[in-house]
Amino acid sequence: MSEAFDILRRVTTATVTTMLLKKGIRHCWMKGAMPLAPGGGRVVGEAFTLRFVPVREDLATPESWGKPISTRAAIEAMPEGCIAVADAMGVATAGIFGDILVMRMAKRNVRALITDGVIRDKAGCLAANLPIWCQGTAAPASVNGLTFVGWNEPIACGGCAIFPGDVIVADDDGAVVIPQDLVEYVAAEGEEHERYESWVVSEVERGVQLPGLYPPDDEAKARYAAWKAKRS
Amino acid sequence: MSEAFDILRRVTTATVTTMLLKKGIRHCWMKGAMPLAPGGGRVVGEAFTLRFVPVREDLATPESWGKPISTRAAIEAMPEGCIAVADAMGVATAGIFGDILVMRMAKRNVRALITDGVIRDKAGCLAANLPIWCQGTAAPASVNGLTFVGWNEPIACGGCAIFPGDVIVADDDGAVVIPQDLVEYVAAEGEEHERYESWVVSEVERGVQLPGLYPPDDEAKARYAAWKAKRS
Amino acid sequence: MSEAFDILRRVTTATVTTMLLKKGIRHCWMKGAMPLAPGGGRVVGEAFTLRFVPVREDLATPESWGKPISTRAAIEAMPEGCIAVADAMGVATAGIFGDILVMRMAKRNVRALITDGVIRDKAGCLAANLPIWCQGTAAPASVNGLTFVGWNEPIACGGCAIFPGDVIVADDDGAVVIPQDLVEYVAAEGEEHERYESWVVSEVERGVQLPGLYPPDDEAKARYAAWKAKRS
Amino acid sequence: MSEAFDILRRVTTATVTTMLLKKGIRHCWMKGAMPLAPGGGRVVGEAFTLRFVPVREDLATPESWGKPISTRAAIEAMPEGCIAVADAMGVATAGIFGDILVMRMAKRNVRALITDGVIRDKAGCLAANLPIWCQGTAAPASVNGLTFVGWNEPIACGGCAIFPGDVIVADDDGAVVIPQDLVEYVAAEGEEHERYESWVVSEVERGVQLPGLYPPDDEAKARYAAWKAKRS
Amino acid sequence: MSEAFDILRRVTTATVTTMLLKKGIRHCWMKGAMPLAPGGGRVVGEAFTLRFVPVREDLATPESWGKPISTRAAIEAMPEGCIAVADAMGVATAGIFGDILVMRMAKRNVRALITDGVIRDKAGCLAANLPIWCQGTAAPASVNGLTFVGWNEPIACGGCAIFPGDVIVADDDGAVVIPQDLVEYVAAEGEEHERYESWVVSEVERGVQLPGLYPPDDEAKARYAAWKAKRS
Amino acid sequence: MSEAFDILRRVTTATVTTMLLKKGIRHCWMKGAMPLAPGGGRVVGEAFTLRFVPVREDLATPESWGKPISTRAAIEAMPEGCIAVADAMGVATAGIFGDILVMRMAKRNVRALITDGVIRDKAGCLAANLPIWCQGTAAPASVNGLTFVGWNEPIACGGCAIFPGDVIVADDDGAVVIPQDLVEYVAAEGEEHERYESWVVSEVERGVQLPGLYPPDDEAKARYAAWKAKRS
Repeated sequence: MSEAFDILRRVTTATVTTMLLKKGIRHCWMKGAMPLAPGGGRVVGEAFTLRFVPVREDLATPESWGKPISTRAAIEAMPEGCIAVADAMGVATAGIFGDILVMRMAKRNVRALITDGVIRDKAGCLAANLPIWCQGTAAPASVNGLTFVGWNEPIACGGCAIFPGDVIVADDDGAVVIPQDLVEYVAAEGEEHERYESWVVSEVERGVQLPGLYPPDDEAKARYAAWKAKRS
Repeated sequence: MSEAFDILRRVTTATVTTMLLKKGIRHCWMKGAMPLAPGGGRVVGEAFTLRFVPVREDLATPESWGKPISTRAAIEAMPEGCIAVADAMGVATAGIFGDILVMRMAKRNVRALITDGVIRDKAGCLAANLPIWCQGTAAPASVNGLTFVGWNEPIACGGCAIFPGDVIVADDDGAVVIPQDLVEYVAAEGEEHERYESWVVSEVERGVQLPGLYPPDDEAKARYAAWKAKRS
Repeated sequence: MSEAFDILRRVTTATVTTMLLKKGIRHCWMKGAMPLAPGGGRVVGEAFTLRFVPVREDLATPESWGKPISTRAAIEAMPEGCIAVADAMGVATAGIFGDILVMRMAKRNVRALITDGVIRDKAGCLAANLPIWCQGTAAPASVNGLTFVGWNEPIACGGCAIFPGDVIVADDDGAVVIPQDLVEYVAAEGEEHERYESWVVSEVERGVQLPGLYPPDDEAKARYAAWKAKRS
Repeated sequence: MSEAFDILRRVTTATVTTMLLKKGIRHCWMKGAMPLAPGGGRVVGEAFTLRFVPVREDLATPESWGKPISTRAAIEAMPEGCIAVADAMGVATAGIFGDILVMRMAKRNVRALITDGVIRDKAGCLAANLPIWCQGTAAPASVNGLTFVGWNEPIACGGCAIFPGDVIVADDDGAVVIPQDLVEYVAAEGEEHERYESWVVSEVERGVQLPGLYPPDDEAKARYAAWKAKRS
Repeated sequence: MSEAFDILRRVTTATVTTMLLKKGIRHCWMKGAMPLAPGGGRVVGEAFTLRFVPVREDLATPESWGKPISTRAAIEAMPEGCIAVADAMGVATAGIFGDILVMRMAKRNVRALITDGVIRDKAGCLAANLPIWCQGTAAPASVNGLTFVGWNEPIACGGCAIFPGDVIVADDDGAVVIPQDLVEYVAAEGEEHERYESWVVSEVERGVQLPGLYPPDDEAKARYAAWKAKRS
Repeated sequence: MSEAFDILRRVTTATVTTMLLKKGIRHCWMKGAMPLAPGGGRVVGEAFTLRFVPVREDLATPESWGKPISTRAAIEAMPEGCIAVADAMGVATAGIFGDILVMRMAKRNVRALITDGVIRDKAGCLAANLPIWCQGTAAPASVNGLTFVGWNEPIACGGCAIFPGDVIVADDDGAVVIPQDLVEYVAAEGEEHERYESWVVSEVERGVQLPGLYPPDDEAKARYAAWKAKRS
């Protein structure tokens, strides 16, 4: 799998979604999970899931932070290199994690945090050097609007189903999920698609019009094949 | 607990929410879960939870209906007298259950079905004689928009957290959840509150104005105490 | 004004909105305020406004019901024949009034209650015999999600501005507001418009096509004039 | 095609959506288009489309009703037996048609009106005897919030793409669209599916559990085949 | 018209909306269409419209990109200097255009792209040097959620009606549409309004209070006239 | 109070919300009110409220700007150092204030403008040097969608109740409201909480795991006490 990961780091999330569409999968881009710091590059990793349900006032309290099922305990369970994906049900009024939790995740070499909710302590989160995809920022803590219930379960995130072990790719166009058994396919096809699009770009730059080029007709396919042959 | 259940069948959901507010709980009424057939009376029972995440096209298929983790298997696991509560993430475009599943639940003496989503086969569901609280009706099956992932886990339903074993009360004002360890309290206080409100109604009927009556000042408290004494 | 009110009781809300559009007013129909009991007829009356803001936990408590600025005090200030219009900010999770308050309003000869929010104790409200236009029903009380702040101020209701003294007309198509100084105009023009539409209906019934009839060309205008002359 | 139409009148919209899902089509149920008068039966017909864009105050006026591109002209262009499907962009504050237009459509033997918007003059529309699927009712006319721009173009309705000539089926579970070249398939498969489900119902009634029955395992398939053989 | 265009390049969209309000037009600012790269200056041009409807899985496929009615063909039909305005129905989960299409538009001297939807390949789009107003970015292609159906038809965009030939002005406050026959009026009045506001700014800077200044009373009008006279 | 204000300028809004949660207050962060220019620092001040209702076409006109109850008059009533908080009902299509009004507020030493709506003339507002928290920008003026009705009344803003005299704290995580009689408590507890969190940060930096540290167990409490003692 690590070879596929190396390739996917060079494949845009836009291309990943097109490859998945060829397999009939349209629900793979997580709505609301956009880069907190755009321009930070692409991340690839296995999903480690976190699950919240709505607040219940007798459970979601500052005291709950010390319980066995807590965001703190979940962070200590995260394997190195994983991408934490949190189901916040799209709630935008309670930050699931603040700077201290994010610092600890960075310390544990978690690769990224992705959520359809929001974070808090924005300045501290940006300083912590953990790439974050989220819907934005809010001052209140998670317990203000959410109750944490567990990790490594199937979750919803931004309109997608995420299963532990699915592979996540995230860049400036957002975050996408690849079902585990399609990872090799997406990597291989995606790499070729990127190559083809880079040729299309060069064609557009020299003034070629789009119909017949993108998608290619037979003549364009031949020109592309020639270009590709010359390159290798 | 069964005595508390007997009392709760005479306590409105409106009163239940007021009793819970006295304990600081504001998130107890499930948004979107309204009676499919209003006027059908009140139900009380323990929550049996069902959980959906968004559709993933490779998993949410008609074929998935035969898998071990399926809505069919969940129904066979429901204990008699429970109230099934389904987390459909508020999705209103895919009916979580149709007439056949609802008939089977009725056959198994499930007391009611409650969801923040919708059902399908409305005519058949009404005929099946299982009380249903939902957001409405849609023709497509759950697999059109949802993937079923498990039962008897903590869930979200209509903006509330529901834990297996919580107690559900539902009537024409909707469906509410009572945390397990507040059930006795709500039953006892709720019964007294209903008694007090029935006296207030009689006062309003004879033209008494609201300030001083509801909530009562000392004079009204005395009159109520007298009325109550006479009744017992 | 009472003559205008008599006429307006025979003018549909649909017609009222068309008359107001001729004066450039498009924001007059209150979104979300639909009849709790359809088929109950049309009501006309002056607006008595009520205003809520979001819940603040230290203020919106059952105890607040006894304070000088409370929904109870507001009800006692309502003049006979008025229509109470409540700005609930479209909140659908807390019932602004329950059966007891509605009973008291009926007792005080308030003509109707209109809100962009919801009510509670649906069964009791229906029994109280006060016509209600609202978005639906919820079990929790207003203090669960709202704080009452005053009456007879300008308010928002269902996307409309309502000023005390504006005139409200409500029927099965919903509730509309007429600015005070357009009431005579709307009544006069509306009555004529209803007469014209009843003639159009008879024309459609005998198979006349719509272009040239509705709106009328010169020939249709002449036929209508003749029909009208014969009637009077 | 008329034979397929006859069959489809006996196939529920729920079943239609399942048959379309087998062909990979998930977007076929129109969100918001629910029966104005539930219990009125199923309709089947070819789509005749109507298209609105947002209001522009210089164009959307009562005067526009007399223009060549108007809802009036569109109605006169509707062929007998068609189902009019109107793209109102889900706008719920302006009724696209009122009683007079609906009466004229009924007179022209249009089979039904379907929209993701709302109608006005609810009482008159119900009396006109044209089945209507819509999101509800509003007093203002279409020109209050919409500009009519044409008919028999591809449209959006309730999250679905509708092309002129597509086939519409609508019942108490809402309205679905069948792409023209899948109509024969859906009719044939749908009829068989209905037969199979009626057998499943009888099995559930005698207490058979769902796993193994729905979907059927080999043993159930054999029992069904026997039942089917006996019936024919 | 080109003189009016030259003037409009010096008139803010804020001022354009105020001039249109004087003519009774309130629906002219496209909700959701905000600059992808703020600070890039103002654009003015004639609208060239593009229309999408929801996805239909049998039509919205990568293969459809090669069809005669495709976004590719539409781009080749765009005249130099036009502003492409795309009705994406506000869909935020499928990017209507990616970097390659945007590059081709820039090559063809299209002035700008405006949509109530989103784009994809954000980095590439920014590099292509075509000003873009949109709701944001998403990785999936248009076919993931939309079906392209045509160009140069009336469309909806961000709650506005856009007709081919309308004039678009867009800057950091968003994008507005001017009906064709109001362009001269808006240019002339807008220019004078900008002049007046620049005088008001100088007055505010020297400490003059707003009542009596903005809008001006007679004394302020006289001072402004004097200032204006001195300047010319 | 001014001492409390000095302390609060060193307390994050995130911490303020946690201190208020300890008092049972969850509704204190204003949804939609985010910094127009992030990174501009924290502001603290007393709330001066402004209230809008929806547009009514006969009242919300450019002419209304000269009336006694107008945004202009409200600005002249603002005391030095206050924070203006405007209830725009979350409307995102009409800018409540433009550059000229914002310049005047800055001139009057208003400390900040906070709204759940939007502003217009973004470039000019940024230049005016008044910190602004809002939902974004729109070209149209307030009268396009709103009617101004008064100042220094209780209002709704971003889902919170704001009363004149409440204290506002705003920074990059948004804007929060502190009820007047909790200001001393929040300042005192908040300062200590910030101190504790700065120690936690140093612990996380040296690799300490979160369970037992945040919240602290007895051992961590002792270490913190020692650290604190050394510092003073």
